Amino acid sequence: MTPSPALRKDGRAPDELRPVTITRNWLDHGEGSVLIEFGRTRVLCVASFTEGVPRWRKGGGQGWVTAEYAMLPRAGSERSGRESVRGKVGGRTHEISRLIGRALRGVVDVAALGEHTIALDCDVLQSDGGTRTAAITGAYVALADAVAWGTDRGLVKARSGAPVLSDSLAAVSVGIIDGRPCLDLPYEEDVRAHTDMNVVQTGAGKFIEVQGTAEMAPFNRDELAALLDLASKGTAELTELQARALAGPSDTAFTVSTLDKEAGA
Amino acid sequence: MTPSPALRKDGRAPDELRPVTITRNWLDHGEGSVLIEFGRTRVLCVASFTEGVPRWRKGGGQGWVTAEYAMLPRAGSERSGRESVRGKVGGRTHEISRLIGRALRGVVDVAALGEHTIALDCDVLQSDGGTRTAAITGAYVALADAVAWGTDRGLVKARSGAPVLSDSLAAVSVGIIDGRPCLDLPYEEDVRAHTDMNVVQTGAGKFIEVQGTAEMAPFNRDELAALLDLASKGTAELTELQARALAGPSDTAFTVSTLDKEAGA
Amino acid sequence: MTPSPALRKDGRAPDELRPVTITRNWLDHGEGSVLIEFGRTRVLCVASFTEGVPRWRKGGGQGWVTAEYAMLPRAGSERSGRESVRGKVGGRTHEISRLIGRALRGVVDVAALGEHTIALDCDVLQSDGGTRTAAITGAYVALADAVAWGTDRGLVKARSGAPVLSDSLAAVSVGIIDGRPCLDLPYEEDVRAHTDMNVVQTGAGKFIEVQGTAEMAPFNRDELAALLDLASKGTAELTELQARALAGPSDTAFTVSTLDKEAGA
Amino acid sequence: MTPSPALRKDGRAPDELRPVTITRNWLDHGEGSVLIEFGRTRVLCVASFTEGVPRWRKGGGQGWVTAEYAMLPRAGSERSGRESVRGKVGGRTHEISRLIGRALRGVVDVAALGEHTIALDCDVLQSDGGTRTAAITGAYVALADAVAWGTDRGLVKARSGAPVLSDSLAAVSVGIIDGRPCLDLPYEEDVRAHTDMNVVQTGAGKFIEVQGTAEMAPFNRDELAALLDLASKGTAELTELQARALAGPSDTAFTVSTLDKEAGA
Amino acid sequence: MTPSPALRKDGRAPDELRPVTITRNWLDHGEGSVLIEFGRTRVLCVASFTEGVPRWRKGGGQGWVTAEYAMLPRAGSERSGRESVRGKVGGRTHEISRLIGRALRGVVDVAALGEHTIALDCDVLQSDGGTRTAAITGAYVALADAVAWGTDRGLVKARSGAPVLSDSLAAVSVGIIDGRPCLDLPYEEDVRAHTDMNVVQTGAGKFIEVQGTAEMAPFNRDELAALLDLASKGTAELTELQARALAGPSDTAFTVSTLDKEAGA
Amino acid sequence: MTPSPALRKDGRAPDELRPVTITRNWLDHGEGSVLIEFGRTRVLCVASFTEGVPRWRKGGGQGWVTAEYAMLPRAGSERSGRESVRGKVGGRTHEISRLIGRALRGVVDVAALGEHTIALDCDVLQSDGGTRTAAITGAYVALADAVAWGTDRGLVKARSGAPVLSDSLAAVSVGIIDGRPCLDLPYEEDVRAHTDMNVVQTGAGKFIEVQGTAEMAPFNRDELAALLDLASKGTAELTELQARALAGPSDTAFTVSTLDKEAGA
Repeated sequence: MTPSPALRKDGRAPDELRPVTITRNWLDHGEGSVLIEFGRTRVLCVASFTEGVPRWRKGGGQGWVTAEYAMLPRAGSERSGRESVRGKVGGRTHEISRLIGRALRGVVDVAALGEHTIALDCDVLQSDGGTRTAAITGAYVALADAVAWGTDRGLVKARSGAPVLSDSLAAVSVGIIDGRPCLDLPYEEDVRAHTDMNVVQTGAGKFIEVQGTAEMAPFNRDELAALLDLASKGTAELTELQARALAGPSDTAFTVSTLDKEAGA
Repeated sequence: MTPSPALRKDGRAPDELRPVTITRNWLDHGEGSVLIEFGRTRVLCVASFTEGVPRWRKGGGQGWVTAEYAMLPRAGSERSGRESVRGKVGGRTHEISRLIGRALRGVVDVAALGEHTIALDCDVLQSDGGTRTAAITGAYVALADAVAWGTDRGLVKARSGAPVLSDSLAAVSVGIIDGRPCLDLPYEEDVRAHTDMNVVQTGAGKFIEVQGTAEMAPFNRDELAALLDLASKGTAELTELQARALAGPSDTAFTVSTLDKEAGA
Repeated sequence: MTPSPALRKDGRAPDELRPVTITRNWLDHGEGSVLIEFGRTRVLCVASFTEGVPRWRKGGGQGWVTAEYAMLPRAGSERSGRESVRGKVGGRTHEISRLIGRALRGVVDVAALGEHTIALDCDVLQSDGGTRTAAITGAYVALADAVAWGTDRGLVKARSGAPVLSDSLAAVSVGIIDGRPCLDLPYEEDVRAHTDMNVVQTGAGKFIEVQGTAEMAPFNRDELAALLDLASKGTAELTELQARALAGPSDTAFTVSTLDKEAGA
Repeated sequence: MTPSPALRKDGRAPDELRPVTITRNWLDHGEGSVLIEFGRTRVLCVASFTEGVPRWRKGGGQGWVTAEYAMLPRAGSERSGRESVRGKVGGRTHEISRLIGRALRGVVDVAALGEHTIALDCDVLQSDGGTRTAAITGAYVALADAVAWGTDRGLVKARSGAPVLSDSLAAVSVGIIDGRPCLDLPYEEDVRAHTDMNVVQTGAGKFIEVQGTAEMAPFNRDELAALLDLASKGTAELTELQARALAGPSDTAFTVSTLDKEAGA
Repeated sequence: MTPSPALRKDGRAPDELRPVTITRNWLDHGEGSVLIEFGRTRVLCVASFTEGVPRWRKGGGQGWVTAEYAMLPRAGSERSGRESVRGKVGGRTHEISRLIGRALRGVVDVAALGEHTIALDCDVLQSDGGTRTAAITGAYVALADAVAWGTDRGLVKARSGAPVLSDSLAAVSVGIIDGRPCLDLPYEEDVRAHTDMNVVQTGAGKFIEVQGTAEMAPFNRDELAALLDLASKGTAELTELQARALAGPSDTAFTVSTLDKEAGA
Repeated sequence: MTPSPALRKDGRAPDELRPVTITRNWLDHGEGSVLIEFGRTRVLCVASFTEGVPRWRKGGGQGWVTAEYAMLPRAGSERSGRESVRGKVGGRTHEISRLIGRALRGVVDVAALGEHTIALDCDVLQSDGGTRTAAITGAYVALADAVAWGTDRGLVKARSGAPVLSDSLAAVSVGIIDGRPCLDLPYEEDVRAHTDMNVVQTGAGKFIEVQGTAEMAPFNRDELAALLDLASKGTAELTELQARALAGPSDTAFTVSTLDKEAGA
């Protein structure tokens, strides 16, 4: 029996995420370290809690959250040159690093951090589309662990009435493939998409970032609405998975997956 | 009489653009050169028609459109260091350059360009918010001039049934200021915006890029809709101004403004 | 009637400047901002008054004046790559930046500035020869405005008996074209010059910099003398124009030109 | 019962390796991809088979093998800055990359590769001492896989009488800790070592590289001999583990460990 | 007996050069290699004759002459950082490299070189003022050797009626010290000079470069004339020394000095 | 009579050093400056005694010794590009700089230096193999001079019972050429060596660094032993020459050579 024409090449329904796996405490180091997988895409997200803030921020008593995204040379199907060897960070890398940092700051009360910086390193070990959305989704979990670490040590102090993290954060890509809105694009779909969008939402479903790009054909308001609906469905499922991951033990590697039979098990 | 509380600090209604001025042929050089002003923001957009394409594109017979955005050191109220002196292009510069290039490619049939590149240099001479949207709006006009220049010389050849430029392109920023959606933010509003969005639309009103960011507070679907409505109003007015500019003479400096009493005069 | 063979290609006499225009307060920002035009050459000269001095100068109580020269990518008839993108400042840029800074420091009493730096950004918007001399001539006007700005705020304090600016400063190029000494070379003459010289003089006619280069044929003492005579005539006219510019209002854009019928009108 | 004073802090005998694990085909991409673990040290070694050779080698019909070593920012117990962001590769990174490439070339018949390059990327995911020796040991396995891949496709052709890989290659660190020669130093021992040495040996026990350094106290011939004996014991065990790994299936992730009860099981 | 007040600190008359020594064939490599000493200033000038020309010059059948100037870190009385380590060439280095190359090209018929480049490396081993003029004076000798080397091998072919080198070239600094024009300034005088000038002249006494700078006080035409007279005296003596050096054997180290009692001895 | 087949191409016995010459006080600047020659290899080693230590070392009251190695562009038989112009330090340069610094620190009591840094600049003026070993051997002499300089001024204070320099340091290369172990390889032998090794030893004959590399064929324990024997003979001779050099006057250039008839004369 061939797959129904209604299904995508990899057998998914248009509104279906790839299998997503989150492993907390993947490393022995790091105040939070998460390996997140969206299908074959694997991103290692590590949170480092460090003293001090960038120079331009000193003296205000507030903290900072920053992020650096990078890809290992052979993350993709062809080897690409190392940015350190080339001596400069590329535009795409810069753009994604800024996106991740900005998104995370959208849910953190930096005043609660004191003059500390939490740096999120998101290194793509394997890439098959959706690396920036996987990075944001995993980085949130690592950030939550680092905030907990800092809170336990009295370095982070929630202000009265305001939690340090106002909400959780998840991201997913959506796009129009062969005229049909689809959720969570792998590389093969990403290059064929007429329009694609990266959406970052809070656990409560509000938007933190919406970045839609017409790669080949401009899109209209209806298409935009359909894409946002799909994205909201996807981020809701990711939010649930994050919650399950964070409910696990904090001192040992712990893996949860959307493939788990019984959520919360 | 003090300004009505319904008006913005600079006296504009929430859905009102700043005075916008476009001067074509601002330079003697360049296959297209446009000075565009959104209020006090001034961006010089110059199109250079050059032989050849980037290495990775060679041999396919298709052209390329690229853009570089930069700010003069004293474009803003404080001097900032020159990126050439620092020896690297910053993340923000990279991000905006990529946005402009991607947006312009959304309306160009690169196959019609042959193996030529049109490079758009968007240099901000003075900055007061909205530099990237002004740059896109001005760059489109410079691009149209460069395409006409290439067509006149037989270097650009429209393919049957497909105009070289499928539509025009304009961009504007919108944001939520003190709880109220506003069009075309100057710097003073930009820093206060809880949410801001840059929207690139075609002359026909379709979307090429939608980039919304919650700087301080996440936004919901209704707010997003209100912002998109405002943006569409703004880009429609810019589209009209671009058309008036392009209807003028191509061999001498020529200025049009949204303040002109009678359009087309 | 064809032009007399005694005249240059652009119709000027050998000892005639191109039309020169100075616009003060061209920008809203900058403690001094001047657009200067030598024919088709246009340079934007902006003075920024900033706190502090370079590290090696700290603690001496004296100020500093520095300059950075740069060319927009399409200032000339062909596009040239951006130095920020290449990741380094070219030798010619370095050389001219150093010349401008050194020349300006020749007329400033840095002790009067306190530990402040005045940075002059000279960005060539359009280039047709003589950009470095236009830059120096315009930068002096911007510097004078910044010194006045600092004096008004009590940040700059002339020492008794010594004005902050000991004299004014203007610069012009001269060269031997087809065997004939000529003043103020446009690009077309510059490339044909056997010898060319850039001369910086004070309002009183003394020399600050003399840089003569035999591009093709070495020159003798008589030729050197003829070139210096021409240069002195040119800088005297520029000095007068600068004085007229500085006599204008300081709070609004104000333009003077060597083409003005009645000087001082 | 406390550990015997004869044992090291982590309970090992002086001549005992940490638990070593090799996982082949750890990634879906890469002509060879190996995750190697020496205790808590984890290095991802990926071989990319690419067309062409470096410019200086072109035209000779011979191939090339090269390596790049790098550490993720939070591989260690403190975050270190990213070399791509700093814009240059550090001396230590350079030194280790060169060591790995040189060692691997010691067992490859580059003439058999034709004008192809095999690039080994060794990225340290977690660091606890011995990263360069783990990298060499893992990179050999990835290289063997890439050579097999190329041989299968007819891109690599062994010359008569000469296998493409003349022997296998493994590396280990040794050092003098508290006066006692020890095998395979973790970070904690590495910083205390008076002398440490990295030794690369072939499967047949010959030396490819011997790099001994007196960090604090110079060493004599007897100490050198003792260290070489230990190293030979260690590389022999690693050679056996590599053989077991390479005997496994080539199309799926496959893990072997020195902890496996029954070798080859 | 104290030195006469008419003499300089180092005992020289105002119009007297420091002892100058030229050693040809100082290295075993290099198509020309010259160690030149102006007092304590020592510059190693090496000419490399290489195939090909810079890209922008290809295909015209003409050659090129270029120069790179640099200072060893401890050439001066304090150590300065290495430009390679800083990752960029400083403005002063750029400026002097350009000056040397431009000056040398002023006496070379590049058409006679074919598509070859002669690169002059001028490395300051010890610095005590006048490094750029020593470099030019020494580089000319190395250039002459490289031209002879190329001529011997038939790579350089003088065009009929035009020698490859139209004249020799020498350079010296002059300045006004305590109100008195002086020749060949050591570091101690250089920093005190109100005005200093670097003059490059041909063997016939014509000017190739005149670069005068008022470091502290602007200078007038009479002072300029006095400085040029001094410079001409100095370059004439250097020209004679160069001729003596070039009259020596070409296959062994050979030293001449202005202190030699009998020229040619 | 042709040379015996037992001799090397340059007439040396296998265990014979090239003529080695050490000139102390080669420069007027530098707290120690040594020109060292191993045959045609010439390296200028300059020690600079400077205030302060690197940032990561501040506050501990201890000093630091560091080294930078570099090659002039035409040190070898072909010109190579300048690292400052390329904008980065190459891997080989980094590796050798680190080796020199590490070796020197092996004999210095950094606690005796106070918070001062001694920087060793080793610039290769001419290269014919063995540059790194010549650099180490010469740098030790320059270091000894700088330590004496600092001791004289009370900046360096030996701790009771511990001399500032625990021993002297010399280095030499050895390798297997045509199956025969040889001492002190010139370039011609270096490229033919199947195995080569750089050995750094103290005056007492202990090892500081042993770096053996099989360039073409792996080596066994017996070959390693033969090479170490040769190296020890060579470094013993160099140690003696260093002692003679350091016994000379400290205030004037002073040269000793292995060719001197009577050692110590």
